[in-house]
This record gives sequence, C-alpha cells and structure tokens, in this order.
Amino acid sequence: MVQNLVQNLGLKGFLLLFLFALLISKSVRAQQPSLNLMPMPASVQAATGSLRVDSSFSVALTGHTEPRLERGVERFLQHLSRQTGLLLSPKPGNSARATLVLHTDHASKEIQEVGEDESYSLEVTSAGAKLTAPTPLGTLHGLQTFLQLVDVSSGGFAAPAVTIQDKPRFPWRGLLIDSSRHFTPVEVIRRNLDGMEAVKLNVFHWHLTDNQGFRLESKKFPKLHEMGSGGPYYTQEEVRDVIAYARDRGIRVVPELEMPGHSTGFFVGYPEIASTPGPFKIDEEWGVMDPAMDPTKEQTYRLLDQLIGEMAKLFPDHFFHIGGDEVNGKAWDANPKVQEFKKAHGYKSNEELQSYFSQRVQKLVTKHGKSAIGWDEIFVPGVSKDIVIHSWRGPDALAAAAKQGYRGILSNGYYIDLMWSAARHYAVDPLGGAAADLKPEQKQLVLGGEATMWSEYVNWENIDSRIWPRTAAIAERYWSPQSVTDVKSMYARLDMISQRLEWLGLTHRSQYRKMLQRIAGPATPEEFAALKTLTDVLEPVKDYTRGESTSWKAITTSPLNHIVDAVPPESDAARRFGELVDKFISTSCSDADTGGRLRAQFVSWRDNDARLQPLAQRSFLAQEVAAKSQDLSTLGAMGLAILDAIAKRQVAPDTWKMQQLTTIEQLKKPQAQLLLMPVAAVQKLVDAAAAGGTCIGNK
Amino acid sequence: MVQNLVQNLGLKGFLLLFLFALLISKSVRAQQPSLNLMPMPASVQAATGSLRVDSSFSVALTGHTEPRLERGVERFLQHLSRQTGLLLSPKPGNSARATLVLHTDHASKEIQEVGEDESYSLEVTSAGAKLTAPTPLGTLHGLQTFLQLVDVSSGGFAAPAVTIQDKPRFPWRGLLIDSSRHFTPVEVIRRNLDGMEAVKLNVFHWHLTDNQGFRLESKKFPKLHEMGSGGPYYTQEEVRDVIAYARDRGIRVVPELEMPGHSTGFFVGYPEIASTPGPFKIDEEWGVMDPAMDPTKEQTYRLLDQLIGEMAKLFPDHFFHIGGDEVNGKAWDANPKVQEFKKAHGYKSNEELQSYFSQRVQKLVTKHGKSAIGWDEIFVPGVSKDIVIHSWRGPDALAAAAKQGYRGILSNGYYIDLMWSAARHYAVDPLGGAAADLKPEQKQLVLGGEATMWSEYVNWENIDSRIWPRTAAIAERYWSPQSVTDVKSMYARLDMISQRLEWLGLTHRSQYRKMLQRIAGPATPEEFAALKTLTDVLEPVKDYTRGESTSWKAITTSPLNHIVDAVPPESDAARRFGELVDKFISTSCSDADTGGRLRAQFVSWRDNDARLQPLAQRSFLAQEVAAKSQDLSTLGAMGLAILDAIAKRQVAPDTWKMQQLTTIEQLKKPQAQLLLMPVAAVQKLVDAAAAGGTCIGNK
Repeated sequence: MVQNLVQNLGLKGFLLLFLFALLISKSVRAQQPSLNLMPMPASVQAATGSLRVDSSFSVALTGHTEPRLERGVERFLQHLSRQTGLLLSPKPGNSARATLVLHTDHASKEIQEVGEDESYSLEVTSAGAKLTAPTPLGTLHGLQTFLQLVDVSSGGFAAPAVTIQDKPRFPWRGLLIDSSRHFTPVEVIRRNLDGMEAVKLNVFHWHLTDNQGFRLESKKFPKLHEMGSGGPYYTQEEVRDVIAYARDRGIRVVPELEMPGHSTGFFVGYPEIASTPGPFKIDEEWGVMDPAMDPTKEQTYRLLDQLIGEMAKLFPDHFFHIGGDEVNGKAWDANPKVQEFKKAHGYKSNEELQSYFSQRVQKLVTKHGKSAIGWDEIFVPGVSKDIVIHSWRGPDALAAAAKQGYRGILSNGYYIDLMWSAARHYAVDPLGGAAADLKPEQKQLVLGGEATMWSEYVNWENIDSRIWPRTAAIAERYWSPQSVTDVKSMYARLDMISQRLEWLGLTHRSQYRKMLQRIAGPATPEEFAALKTLTDVLEPVKDYTRGESTSWKAITTSPLNHIVDAVPPESDAARRFGELVDKFISTSCSDADTGGRLRAQFVSWRDNDARLQPLAQRSFLAQEVAAKSQDLSTLGAMGLAILDAIAKRQVAPDTWKMQQLTTIEQLKKPQAQLLLMPVAAVQKLVDAAAAGGTCIGNK
Repeated sequence: MVQNLVQNLGLKGFLLLFLFALLISKSVRAQQPSLNLMPMPASVQAATGSLRVDSSFSVALTGHTEPRLERGVERFLQHLSRQTGLLLSPKPGNSARATLVLHTDHASKEIQEVGEDESYSLEVTSAGAKLTAPTPLGTLHGLQTFLQLVDVSSGGFAAPAVTIQDKPRFPWRGLLIDSSRHFTPVEVIRRNLDGMEAVKLNVFHWHLTDNQGFRLESKKFPKLHEMGSGGPYYTQEEVRDVIAYARDRGIRVVPELEMPGHSTGFFVGYPEIASTPGPFKIDEEWGVMDPAMDPTKEQTYRLLDQLIGEMAKLFPDHFFHIGGDEVNGKAWDANPKVQEFKKAHGYKSNEELQSYFSQRVQKLVTKHGKSAIGWDEIFVPGVSKDIVIHSWRGPDALAAAAKQGYRGILSNGYYIDLMWSAARHYAVDPLGGAAADLKPEQKQLVLGGEATMWSEYVNWENIDSRIWPRTAAIAERYWSPQSVTDVKSMYARLDMISQRLEWLGLTHRSQYRKMLQRIAGPATPEEFAALKTLTDVLEPVKDYTRGESTSWKAITTSPLNHIVDAVPPESDAARRFGELVDKFISTSCSDADTGGRLRAQFVSWRDNDARLQPLAQRSFLAQEVAAKSQDLSTLGAMGLAILDAIAKRQVAPDTWKMQQLTTIEQLKKPQAQLLLMPVAAVQKLVDAAAAGGTCIGNK
C-alpha cells in the first residue's frame, strides 16, 4: 500500500506527506499532557483558539434522535453545570445555532452488541462545536470527550479548539464488580456506571453469585436469594433499573452465575445440587472453598435450565457468564457416586468432569438464546466456537484460543483487587505476550478486557477508591491506540480525571478523608495532619498477602474500618517523592531546589511520629500504624543523613552503605497489611550516595 | 420556695445540699470539654468506665413501641455503623439483655405539638445502657445523644459511663430554609433534616414563596407553581414525603406563604391580586421589591381562602406562617383605588392597611383550623392572642409582645445568611435584652427561635456549609440551659459535631474542597495547597454587603462558583491563629514554642503568593483573589517584622506603629466580597509590640 502511494504521489510528494504525518503525530504527542483527555482519542489535532463555555451554552440534537439521546444531553448539561457551576438550560434544543451541535446518523441496535460502531468525530472551534457519530453510542462517547475538554481558563470556562477522530481499539471494555463477597448497594453501582461512562467502558460484568452469597432474586427458585444471600440481594426490579441505567450510558450488563465451584450461595437453599451433603451456610472467609455442584445429577441441570431461562429473560445482553473457575475437586473426590460416574464415562480427571459440566451448561445457555462466556476453564476441546473465553490466565491462553478460532477477553493483569499501581495495569495489553504474534484476523478474536473488582475487602465505603482512578488507566488501554503508553502523561491525566470523577458522585477521594477521621476520632488538626502525612505514603500490601494472613481471613464478618481499608491502593505522595528523587539523582544530586525540597520532606517525616503518637495512643485503629509511624521517622532521619553524606561529596565507607541497606530492608516489611512506599526511592538515594554512586562519582 | 426548703431541712442540711449542688454544677462544667455532646444536656453526671461498642452491639425497644421508633432505631444503627465502620445487626430486638435498652412510656401526639414532652434520661455503664423517655420524641433525642457519646478509644469504640437527664429549654427550635431565592432539591432538604435531628432541632420552617419563585404545587391554582416557579417546584407528593421524613425525626414542618409583600411569585400567574398592573415576572435580583398584594380586593381574599384551605390540609402542623415582612408600600401608594380604600376606612398609614390585611388573613388561617405565625409586622393592636410573632426585630419586640400575652419566637441574631461567626450567634439569647426582665409566666411565652437560611447566595452546593456547623451552636442555645455559654468549649465540640454531620451525608466540609478544585482546574498539588492556604483564612463579607454591591446583585441568574461561595462563613484557621496570638501575648510574648509556631505561620503566608500566582493567572476564578493573596503575603512579612521587633524588646517609635496600623487598615478592605481574617489578630500583635504594649512593657 505504501508502494502504491509512492507511485501516485511521486517520491517528493510522498516525503512531504511523510513529514506532515510526522508533524501531526508529534503534535498529538505534544498535545497529550496539555489536553486532559482519558482515554486519549485515536486522533487529536490541536487548533488555535478556544470555545468559551458560559451560561449561554446550548446543545442541539440533529439527525437521528431518540429519548436516550435526549436524556444523554440532559445528563451532559447537568454534569457540565456541576463541573463549572454555571447555570445552563437543562434541555437540548434543535437549533443549528446551538453552541454544540450533535448529529447522529442512525439508531444503534435494540440490544447493544459487541462490535457496534462507537466512533465519533468532534470539532471544536472558537465559534462552536460539532459532534457527529454514526450511532448514539458514538454520540454519548463524544459528549464525554467534550466534558473533559472544558476547563477553567484566564478568560472563563472554555474548551480548546481541536479536531478529534475517535473510535475504540477493542469492542469489549469491561469492569467486573463482585457483589457477592460484599453486597454492592444499587446507588453504588449507579455511580460506578457513571464513572464507566466517563472513561468509555462499555461492559458491566455483574458477578452476582459466589460462596459468600447469592445476590439475585429468582422467582423460580426463591430459596436461592432468600436463604443464599444472607441478607441483601437485588430484586428483579432493581436489576431492570440497573440495566436501563447502563444502556442509557452505552454500557452492556453481562450477568455471571458462578458454577460449578464458587457456588455455596446456591447450596444454602438447594443442597440437593451439591456434590457433598448439606446443610450449607454461606462462607465468611477468604479463599477457594471446596463445595461444588454435582455434575452427575440430572436434577442439577434441570434447576440450571430453568434458572438460566429465567435470567436470560431478565438480562437482555447476548452473553451470559457461567463462571467456571477454581474448582479444587475435593467435593467430587469425596463423593463415591461422582467417582462411579467418572469411571462410567471414562473421565480420567476432575478437569474432564468439569468439561462435561461446562458443555452441558453452555448448551443450556445456547438453548435460551445466549452465548456463553466463562473463565479459561470452559475452553475445552470441542466446545462450541460461539463461546467467549474470559482469561484470568493471561494473553498466552487467549492466543492459544484465538489460534483455534475462539474469541476471548483478558482479565489477567487487570485484577484491581491486587492493589497494583495504575502503571502496572497500564503496561498490560490484551494483545501482549503470545497474542502479539497472532495474525491480524486472529487478533480480531481478542475482544478486549475487563478490570475485576473482587470484593473480599471492599464494601460500599471503599469500593470507589479501589476502582478509581486506576480503572481509568485500564480503560485507556482498552480504548486508545496501542502506541499510547507514556506513563508520565497517563499519571498527569489520571490526576485530572480522578478529580472529575468525584463530580459524578464517586467518593474515591473524599471517603478516604472521612475514614481517616473515624480512625482519628476527636483529634486536633495537627494530629490529624500527622496521621494523614503518614497514611498518604502507605499502601495496602499487594497480591493475596492480606487474604493469606491468618488474622485477616474473615471477610464478611470483619469491619473494613482499618487504615489498610482507607488508604488508596496507590500513594500519589510516594510516587511524586520518587519523581523528585529521580530528578535529584539525574542532576548528580546538585540541584539545590530539589535537594532543598527533599530535605524539607525528610524533616517533616522525621518529626511526624512525635506529633502522631498521642493520637495513636488514644485510637486502637491509629495504633495499628504506630510502628509504621516510627519507620517513617527513621526514614526521614536516614534521608537527612544521606543528604548530608552527599553534601560532603566524599566516598562513604562500604559499611555505611551496608548499614543503610539493612535499615531499608527493615523498613520494607509490611505491618498491619501496609507498606511504607517511599523506602524504594530512598534506597536509590543510598545507591547514588554510596561509594562510586552517581552523586559521589560524578561530582 | 427556698425559704420552705430551709425550714424543712434545717440550715445545716440546706447548706450541705447547696454545697452538693455546687459540686454537681462544677462537675458538669468540668465534663463539658471532654464529652463531645452538642447540644449539651441539661444535666450530665460522669461515672467511671465505659461501654464497649462492637459488632455484638444490640438495641431493644421496650414499653410503648410504634413503627416510627423501629425506624428510628434502624436509622440509629445505620448511623452507628457508618460512624464506626462496624457491622451491626440492622434491626431492633426486644431482649432486656440488649446493649442499649430503650423504654418509651407512651405515644406522643398524632400531630406533633409545641411543648410536648421531649425529655429523656440516659444511663451508660460498662455493662450496658438504658434510655428512658415519656414519649418517642425523647427517645429519638436520646438516641442522638448516645451516637455522640460513641467514639474511638485505645480499646475499641466505646461510650463513656455517664448519667444524663435532659430536656429542652425552649419548645420551638427551628431552622428556616428559603426555597424560593434558590430552589432546594428534596434530597438536600432530607439531609438537612438529618442534621437537624442530630442537634435536636424540632421545627423545619419551609419558606416556600417569595419574589423569586412560588415553589409549591397548588391543585386549585396551578398557575402559581406553573408560572410562578420559573421552573422547579415541590409536588404535593414530595411535600408529603418531606413531612413524613421530618415527623420520623421529631421535626414539625411549618409552611410559609409570604404575603402581602415578597409575593411576586403569586403575581406571575395571578396578576389580578397585585396592587399594580402586570404582567409580572419573577425577580432575579437582591433586595426588597415593590410589588404587593391588593388588600382592598375581595378577589385577593377569595384566592387566599381557597389556597390556605388547600395547604392547611397538605401540611398537618397546627401553625401556618403568613409572612408579613418588608412591605415598602410603593405599590399601594401607586394605586388610586388603594388610596381611596385607605381614606374610606380611615387608615392613616400603609402600616394600618397592612394590619387590616394581616387580620383578615389571620382569620382565614383560623377558619381552616390553624394558628397563624408571622413576622413582627402581624403584631398589631387587637390581633388574636392565638398568633405567634416571629421576630426579625429582636428580643425587645418579643418582650413587648409577651407583656401583652402574645407568644413569640426569635430570629433576630440567628440570620445565618449574614455570615457571622458561630460565637456571635451563640451569644444571642431568645430571653436576652428586654426579655430577660420578663416575669416567669411571660418568659413562657417566648417559645424559642429559628435560624434563618435566606438563600440569595445559597444553592444545593453550598447550602450545607452556610447552615452547618454554625446552626449546631444555635441549636445548643435553644436546647441547653441558659448557663451553657463557654465559647471555647462550644468551638471544641462544634468541631466534632461538624465531622459527624458529614457522616449523615451533609457536605459542608467536602464540597468546599470540590468547589476549590473547580476554581483551581488542572493545578499541581502545590498550587492547590497554596490556594487552600489562602482561602482557609478568607471569609465572605458580613451582613448585606454582598447584596448591596452593584456587581453582585443578580442572585438567580449568576453562578455561585466564586471563592466567596466556596469558603465557609467562618474560618477555623483564622480562629486558631487568633487563639495562638492571644496565647503568645498572654505570656508577654515570651513563650518560645508559640512564638516559633507564629513565625512558621508567617513564613508560610509570606511565601504563599509566589506559589499561587501561576494558578491565579490561569483561572479567572482564582484571579479574583490575586490581590488578597498579595495581602496575605504582606501580612506574613509584617508578622515576621513584628516578631523581630518584639524579640528586640525595645520601645518601637510611634511612627512604626502608625505605619503598621495604616497597612492593617489596607488589609482589612474586602476584595471579591472576601475578608482576610487574621488581620485582626496581627493588629493585636502590633499593639502588644508597640511602645508600652504588653510585650515590650512587661519584659
């Protein structure tokens, strides 16, 4: 294709075009930090000037219209009004002289489908803005982009002049919320759907059943929710409301009934379909549990047939998630009849038995007019090509499936319950690993990914801070071109989107403060500031460390009011401190301003413990971090000593370095399931300061 | 009575009793700072130990029960759970072994009445707690007291052992919300009713009509809300919901239809009852407007008769507020027929004409089974003793009315829209001024007071911060013994209650931060901190200064997104700084620690402007405080110079003092409707430092 182009343009013309393309791509990159968009659009062309946004701002709907679009514009105007404080006319008009004119070509599908056209283009000039899209899905996305463009300026609120052509990279961009381990109140789901809309996610994967509770009303099998929920569950009416709310925001709702493992919630009311004898009660602890459905009984399939039939009607989406992960096989090993069944059918392993179960359930899903999606385990030889594989294993598993013609989505790398940094999730690509080498048509089978909010240690109060803002970075991975990978730009924009998300009612920032206030009780402003200085640089332990700690196993019966529950998964303060240290080292530790800021930071840390101790003695919750507070003090004193050593510009003895590193190792140890995050950057300083290090050597 | 007591006990016994009483009253006072209760109960007896509050906490209802009490306990448990993060059983039981046992003697009135028994007693020991009350009103109040007792401690959450006997000083403890100038969404009203419950206020005075909008649906006169609201209004269904919500919290709802002035809202749809010709449109500006009802037309009274009849059915309360204030008479002077009417009836003034109107409307209210309440103006010779006078004029007016046997409530001194400090409102007593000299039976006629939230510059976003926490201090004035006047204790407790009020969903603290973020736009953390350092010591101008400023007159068409809209009415930081200065001066400026803290504060202020300027240049909203930012910098530099002068312990020349005071006067000038609050304390330092001042003279 390039060859043809060269022939048509002549070499000179081609080179000019090439240079122009370079310029454009450069201008896009240069724009990235200044345009606070997330996800970054496929193409952004900055222009001159800006569009003033004031009380006269108006929106018109042209082309195809529908009530959903009108509601979308009303919501847009409400958000714009909240974001700016401006009084705006609350309804769309149809005047071509409106400030923002929307044009939608035609309707989207009655039931939103995977791969529908979600593209849009948006042109903003100082005279007005025009947003055009083939379908309402694109229009809704474009409205969110416009909202992100509007910001305060020296002359009032304004959106910069720009031309944007945008469409998603992947058609399946999801967030899973586990409403079983901890129930998620409907209003919490609603505000998170608002957050999803803001960052252009389009699948809400609702994990409704698990060992800790069956959360979905069944009219056919009422004991499922009455006995299996342990209290709170969603009525079908509420489910319908959530689905309508999501559809209004261009979001599909995919329900998951987890089976044959993770299904104690089923067995409390219906022990007869379990592989081991009852009675059962819903689990309260962290971990993979033994109970599993009895895959040998026809009764099991009769119940599932009716239940799936009932729920297939309730949930309009074309996909139905049947779970399938983490069956440890113990319940089957313990049941002689299951063993007989395996023998009779020639199954050599429990995996083969699970394959049999999966295929039967998948056929039930098909019978009720849906396609099955399930975790890696449902991908077994001979299964219908209609399924979608949901991979917790990784891109290699997806690649293997794609090579055989199976579609898949990735969640490995997007487990936001593991408390990783946004940067770490951001680096994961659904087409990474072995998937990078797939042929183009095979790559098409990788539909996207889902961030998974497993809720062992997550409730109404801290769920927002576990999902946001990190999920916005993941959403960018699913939406934006693969080349958008600049971590620094990502964090700069993440900061802004995080602030905006709170205008939607999300509480990921404000609730942190409230939870700290609960922990602090009647504290002086100074004591509270000392507590926050400490907790601002703490992060929860990573991966499954907390769940594996003996004293933190209870997940549904233990209050989530500890500091580990309050602090965000990622410390902004520690990240910024790390950047400061990097900057200092990059100047061979000679930049006086940076050095001065580091010194001030170390002094504040060194002195913080004395201010915090009275509070720690009064509050059992603050007491949990008393040791970490001393560690921060130690780290501050250490930092000052290192800066002093650097200032001398003398080679420090090896024993000095060894001592420092020994202390560093001590400070790295978690306490109360918390990590002191600035330690790593101080370690870099030690290296830079020690004999032969950057700061001593290069001076 | 004392004489009888002395005779019965003998002098010795009496003296012992007297000493005992002294001891008790002393223990109450000593308790005040450590028990974070607001309003302070009538009697508090501290005991030893505390009651642990953990997940096993339970509540039982004994004696009289009713659904309202059950809902009250559920709400209590929900709030306790939010406040502590504990997982609590969500329902009350009836076991005498519950942690907190409630006993209610009997039902309260079907429609809550003025002066019903609201007393309760609460005994907390390390073994459990018992709350007893004659009526559910007392039980509900006691639950709020218990909630305030629970706090974090070294051993877990706990309530201190204590015996409380409590009852209100005044039976009418109200908050007026003006929903006309700016419409108050129902959810905002709900969360403010929650706040009222928390501080034991019992009257929600709903100001539903004014020049800026008629906000109440009328089935009989639909043009009132359709044309007169300019958009948003309350449906009767919503009104019923609010009334039920309030009743659940022991709160009466008193509606106000403001007339014959402040009534443009009526005239948009029904110009025929106005004294001047239409057409009318609702007002957008600040001020007292000319239009008034035509008191000479029978048509006016026919409409009011039917309207009051309709609303008397909708609002169950025994009282109906008919407004009556601020008729400037211009509309009557301009109407020849009104002039004829005055002449024919022998009325010499418009006041006499208004008396005629008031008496006719008051009779309509009586006809529909209610008692009228209205502003001072309705108190005219010969009016029925059934009325209640709502005084914006002051305690002297109330005293004059009481001497003639009329009941009254006070709002003068409680106008929270005037941006006064909590201390200033706290110092106002409904039985102050001339009312202090009333006879006991006359004092009984002073029923209490109402804080008034006039909403010229108040909308959904900042209303919470205008009402709270200051209204909690006013609520204490209405509830607690007259002797509870310690301002320092009040502020200490106000801080705590303010924090707790946010758990109820009030946003007075969190929204300030969000509004600042809107103003700051995409700012660095350092820039944002600089903005907040400045705004934390700014307060809105006082009294009617803002409304009287030409460029700030538009109240319904101007966005409330300025810094003056965001900052709280009272600066905590400035108050604390003032306390620090007082402390320093009280040690003859010799306490090194305090001096050091002052110095650090001055340095931070001096250097703040440089950090803030880049942001001020980017944001037109931040730009408004650029001058005040320079002022803060000046103040910081000045403070440092004063400390230096003090350190020399030399007599400073008079010219020095003059210079300082000239600068002080400059810094006191408002800008962008904002005042720089720490100036007054720095002025004290100047006095202390200057020749002969405390700090120079006493060394």
